[in-house]
Amino acid sequence: MQLQNDLFLRAARGEQTERTPVWLMRQAGRILPEYRAVRNSLSGFIELVRTPEHAAEVTIQPVDLLGVDAAIIFSDILVIPEAMGLPYEMIEKRGPYFPKTVESEADLNKLLGEEAADNLTYVYDAISLTKKNLNGRVPLIGFAGAPFTIFAYMIEGSGSKTFSKARRIFYQNPSFAENFLEKITAATIAYLKNQIRAGADLVQIFDSWAGILPPAQYERFSLKYIDQICNAITEVPVTVFAKGAYFARQAMGKLNCQVVGLDWNMDIAESRKLIGENKVLQGNLDPCALYGSYQSIEDQTKAMIDAFGNHKHIANLGHGVYPDTDPDKVKYFIQTVKKYSQKNAK
Amino acid sequence: MQLQNDLFLRAARGEQTERTPVWLMRQAGRILPEYRAVRNSLSGFIELVRTPEHAAEVTIQPVDLLGVDAAIIFSDILVIPEAMGLPYEMIEKRGPYFPKTVESEADLNKLLGEEAADNLTYVYDAISLTKKNLNGRVPLIGFAGAPFTIFAYMIEGSGSKTFSKARRIFYQNPSFAENFLEKITAATIAYLKNQIRAGADLVQIFDSWAGILPPAQYERFSLKYIDQICNAITEVPVTVFAKGAYFARQAMGKLNCQVVGLDWNMDIAESRKLIGENKVLQGNLDPCALYGSYQSIEDQTKAMIDAFGNHKHIANLGHGVYPDTDPDKVKYFIQTVKKYSQKNAK
Repeated sequence: MQLQNDLFLRAARGEQTERTPVWLMRQAGRILPEYRAVRNSLSGFIELVRTPEHAAEVTIQPVDLLGVDAAIIFSDILVIPEAMGLPYEMIEKRGPYFPKTVESEADLNKLLGEEAADNLTYVYDAISLTKKNLNGRVPLIGFAGAPFTIFAYMIEGSGSKTFSKARRIFYQNPSFAENFLEKITAATIAYLKNQIRAGADLVQIFDSWAGILPPAQYERFSLKYIDQICNAITEVPVTVFAKGAYFARQAMGKLNCQVVGLDWNMDIAESRKLIGENKVLQGNLDPCALYGSYQSIEDQTKAMIDAFGNHKHIANLGHGVYPDTDPDKVKYFIQTVKKYSQKNAK
Repeated sequence: MQLQNDLFLRAARGEQTERTPVWLMRQAGRILPEYRAVRNSLSGFIELVRTPEHAAEVTIQPVDLLGVDAAIIFSDILVIPEAMGLPYEMIEKRGPYFPKTVESEADLNKLLGEEAADNLTYVYDAISLTKKNLNGRVPLIGFAGAPFTIFAYMIEGSGSKTFSKARRIFYQNPSFAENFLEKITAATIAYLKNQIRAGADLVQIFDSWAGILPPAQYERFSLKYIDQICNAITEVPVTVFAKGAYFARQAMGKLNCQVVGLDWNMDIAESRKLIGENKVLQGNLDPCALYGSYQSIEDQTKAMIDAFGNHKHIANLGHGVYPDTDPDKVKYFIQTVKKYSQKNAK
C-alpha cells in the first residue's frame, strides 16, 4: 500500500523533506482520555498489549487525535523477557515487576533465545491489523528494548535507581552477562524481523537505562549488541535511542542505523558534531516544556527546530510524553513543528 | 589544632601530595554494622541526624574502620528545607518524604531564608564535637545540597524519576522559581558558613538531581546559585559535585571552587580537558565495581588512578557507596588507592 504521508520515512532515510516530521514517544496511551477508556474496559495494561484489536485501536488514536506523522505500535519492551520465559506484571503507578528473575546459569539455560520470537504472535497480529486500519495514512514504527536494558530488568526484577544488582554482574561474571546478552540479542533480532514482516516501516531500539553505565562498559555490554541488531536489520530504517548515553554519541555515529534519538540533556549542535552529518537526529524537546503556556511551547519548539535545522531531523520529545500532559498542549507542539518547519524549509 | 593527616586538604588546594587522598561519599552509615548498631538504638535516621553525640560517633566510624583520609559530617541535605519550615520524614527503603510541599507564593513567603541557618544548631554542635573527637586525625567535610536539588524536593515532596512537578515551574513560572532558589541560596550560604565556623575544613555542594535538567536550564536555575555559593565561601576550599551534569563541565571549570566531583559516567580525560587544569578532580569509580573480586577492584582502582594521574585528584567513588557493599571490599579499594598512588607518585 502506498503511504499518503511518508514524510517520516523519507526523513528517516535522510531525504530532504518539505517540512520536519513529528511524533512522540509514548504518544499511544497515557495522555489521551480515549486511551484510558479502552484500557479501563480491560483488566489492565498487559491485556491491552496482548489483544491485537485493542492494541491497534490505541496505536491509531494519536494519528487521528493529535496529527502525528507516524504511529508506533502499542506494546512494551518487556514482552521479550516474557517470550523468553520470564513473565512480567505491570503494577499501577509502580511500573514493571518480575516475580522471578534470572539468578544463575541454570535460569539462563531455561530461557528461550531466537525461538522466543515465535511467542509474540499477538504483536505481529497487532501490527498487521494496525497497518490495515491505518490504511496508508502514516508509517508504523515497530520497536524493541536494547539487550542491556532488557538484561537489567530480567536480573533486577523491576525498575531501580542504580540497577546495581544487574550491573554488578559486569564486574563479577562478565562472561555470564555476555551469554545472556547474546541470547536476548538473538531473540530481539528475530522479533524485529517478524515485526517488519508484519508491516513495521521502521524499527526503534530503546536503551532506556543506557545512562547508568560507565562508558567502557556501555561499549562492551550494550553498544556491541545494538550494533549486531543494526547490522542484522537491513529491511527498513533503524532508530537507536539510548537515553543518557551522551558519552557514546561518537560511537552512535558509526552504527549501521539511520536515525539516532537525542534526550533533552543533549546539546543539539554538540550532538550533531559528535554523531556526524550522516545520521538523522530525532528529538529532543524536554517533556516538561509541554507544561508551559502555548506561547512558551511555541518558543521552545521553534528554538528546537532552529537548532536542528530543516534537514535530517525528526521532531520528538527527548523522552516519552509525561502522563499528565494536556493533549491540547501536545497538539500545539505538533502544529508548531508542522507550521514552523514548513515556513523554515522554504 | 594541627592535622596529623592533611593530605585531603592539601590535595583540595591543588598542592602536590605524596599520595592520592581517598574517602567515600556515604562512607558514614549504610555499609557499616557499627553504624547500624547505633541507628538501631534510636528511633530512626532523623533522630540520628539531630543528636550530635550519635552523629559525631558515626561520622568518625569510617576513619577508624576504613582508614579514609577525610570524615564527612553525618547529616542530610534535607535539613535545610526543614530549617526553612518544611519538615521531612525518612521512609525506610523509600527515601525522603515531605508531608507538605511548596505550592504557591504564599507557601514560599512563609519559609525562612538566611535565618533558617539558626535552626541548625544540632549540625554545628555535631561538627564541633566531631572535630574534638577526631582530635586532628583527618579533616572534616561539611556539606549542603545545591539549591536546585533542594528546590526539587521541596516542590516534588519526594524523590521522582522525572521531577516533572518541580521542573515544570521553570516553564510555567520562572520568576517564582528564581525567588525560591534565591531564598534557598541565602539559607545555604549562612548554613555553610556556620558549619565552617563550627570546624568544617572543606564544604561540598551536592547537586544530586543536576542530570535531569536541559543544559540551558541548568545554567539558569542551578549553576547560577552554585556560583553564588562558591563566591560567598572564601574561608575553606569548596567541592561541587553535580551528578549527571556532564553538559556543564566546561562551566564548572569557571566556578570559584577548588574541587569538581565526577560521577562514574564521566570520562576522566575528557572531563579534565573540559574542566581545565586548575581544578582538582574528585571521583569516580563506579560504586558497582566494589561488588567485584579483590583482583577486579584492584584492577579497576589502578586504572582509575592511572587515568587521573598523581596530581590534583582526590580518589572517591562516582556516587555514594551502595548499601549492600562489603566493608572489606571498601577497605581494599582504599588500601589500593593508598599503595598504588604512593608507588605511582615516586
